[in-house]
Amino acid sequence: MHVRILGSAAGGRFPQWNCGCGNCVAARENKPTRKFTAKPRTQAQLALSSDGSRWFLAGASPDLAFQIEAAPELHPRALRDSPIAGVVLASADLDHVIGLLLLRELQPLRVYAAPSILRILRDENSMFGMLNRIEPQVVWTPMTAGAPFPLQDAAGNDCEVSCEAIFLSNRFPKYVKSKIQNEEARTASAALFFQAKSPKSSAVKSVAYIPAVEKLDNELLAKIEGVDVLLLDGTFWSNDELIRIQGNGETAHQMGHIPVEESLRLLKNTKVGRRIYMHINNTNPILNEESPEHRAARAAGWEVAEDSWHLEL
Amino acid sequence: MHVRILGSAAGGRFPQWNCGCGNCVAARENKPTRKFTAKPRTQAQLALSSDGSRWFLAGASPDLAFQIEAAPELHPRALRDSPIAGVVLASADLDHVIGLLLLRELQPLRVYAAPSILRILRDENSMFGMLNRIEPQVVWTPMTAGAPFPLQDAAGNDCEVSCEAIFLSNRFPKYVKSKIQNEEARTASAALFFQAKSPKSSAVKSVAYIPAVEKLDNELLAKIEGVDVLLLDGTFWSNDELIRIQGNGETAHQMGHIPVEESLRLLKNTKVGRRIYMHINNTNPILNEESPEHRAARAAGWEVAEDSWHLEL
Repeated sequence: MHVRILGSAAGGRFPQWNCGCGNCVAARENKPTRKFTAKPRTQAQLALSSDGSRWFLAGASPDLAFQIEAAPELHPRALRDSPIAGVVLASADLDHVIGLLLLRELQPLRVYAAPSILRILRDENSMFGMLNRIEPQVVWTPMTAGAPFPLQDAAGNDCEVSCEAIFLSNRFPKYVKSKIQNEEARTASAALFFQAKSPKSSAVKSVAYIPAVEKLDNELLAKIEGVDVLLLDGTFWSNDELIRIQGNGETAHQMGHIPVEESLRLLKNTKVGRRIYMHINNTNPILNEESPEHRAARAAGWEVAEDSWHLEL
Repeated sequence: MHVRILGSAAGGRFPQWNCGCGNCVAARENKPTRKFTAKPRTQAQLALSSDGSRWFLAGASPDLAFQIEAAPELHPRALRDSPIAGVVLASADLDHVIGLLLLRELQPLRVYAAPSILRILRDENSMFGMLNRIEPQVVWTPMTAGAPFPLQDAAGNDCEVSCEAIFLSNRFPKYVKSKIQNEEARTASAALFFQAKSPKSSAVKSVAYIPAVEKLDNELLAKIEGVDVLLLDGTFWSNDELIRIQGNGETAHQMGHIPVEESLRLLKNTKVGRRIYMHINNTNPILNEESPEHRAARAAGWEVAEDSWHLEL
């Protein structure tokens, strides 16, 4: 399986347009010092493929057009064309869905998401109608939890990657207006487990993508055990990070993110191939490669995702 | 007046993510040849300022976060800060409004637009609610036509730039669901006329920004006469451009854009300081600096906008 990390920052990018914190200034000036070394990052975006020619996106970041241009394997191969077959959405967060509106140039795509998420996008936000101006264009496909399903392109061709969703949270974005039905209460965000055969052998390889998770319970830990690549919520280092920097706001847990200092501890004995933090907020000290927090994460066997990493499994 | 062209392409950027036309391939590979020399461009975006410290955006392009990072004068000067005081919208086109959703990091801003446009954004698209999660954040201000009004920041401070809108069209974007009232029929798009005093003298300087116009009638031509800078719809060179390339589709006029080959002729005798085409579609041959169309526009006294141009009036 080919995995491309097209973007690794949380919502707002790094640097963030209206933020003058030490991390952001260092990334903006791009001049490493002994105190600050921090690489700019675009918003979290993953692309996966079994064969390297048909790709699925996990999420659709607001930076998607730039991210596609930066990845030659996603460039068109004909007059009107894209290797992107579809998109799997884990939530309706703006930094995870706005990119769909950038894919509106009459291209056939399949979009998978929980029924609640599809309703929020399509019924509450008329702009998404631009994705269905002609046929064939976007095919919206409801995603349920509990069993893997094969990812298909808009025409229904199997692309040899499977996906299993585990729903995690009832924390829908603050913009949502529609009433969420009881049976959908937990579908606000999902952990996505992708599987595909290795091109080198017939072994099945697995990637867990969990950009937002408040709590790592035993069920989720058991599911993570043994994956080849874990891409985990690295939004905040500590629970009160935003409050300390801004003087007010919510804790990491209140915003639906487990702090890195807790997940480091909780996943200490979980066996995974590579463990990588992504969806990293501009305030997180692990972005600064000179920080004790960055060193602590590296010493615990974690990598800190950077844009344009290409993993081959 | 300071004018910064942050982006100069039409919707979809140049190159466009799913387009493999000659122009797009040349821009993507960024290797000039004797046949093709074409610079990549982000989506049309203008920033204006009287004093160089408080800026207004005309439009809010999907590429706005990158465009802000590329313009040092728009960087924050404090922990949470932006020199951007507000935004003036000429239409509800996606490539003109999505950028508002990127300005959601709790920053006070004033957004001016026709009442019809404000309704489309705020009533039909719940995501724009993220711009009003706290106070002070975005202040939405209805814009009427026929008289200049002073641009103010969210707190009501006059920023020494005035704007006058002339409404041009009843062609609302195809995603719009709400019924447009009769008295609002013409408010789908606007020409924006900005004025400010020159920092060097007390002379009043003027900029006309008209990214989408189907017809240059005598009233509009009279209004354009004498402006210091004209930034005009350069979307398509010819009326059947998209149809010839794609094999189907609408004419330039049907999409609400006067072709460059017509506006060149119509504006031949109109006196303006600088005349610049912007909002240029990836299919427009003027993007290719080796093309006869590019040379014809230049010979007629026009410039072809490029990203990051800074005009001082």
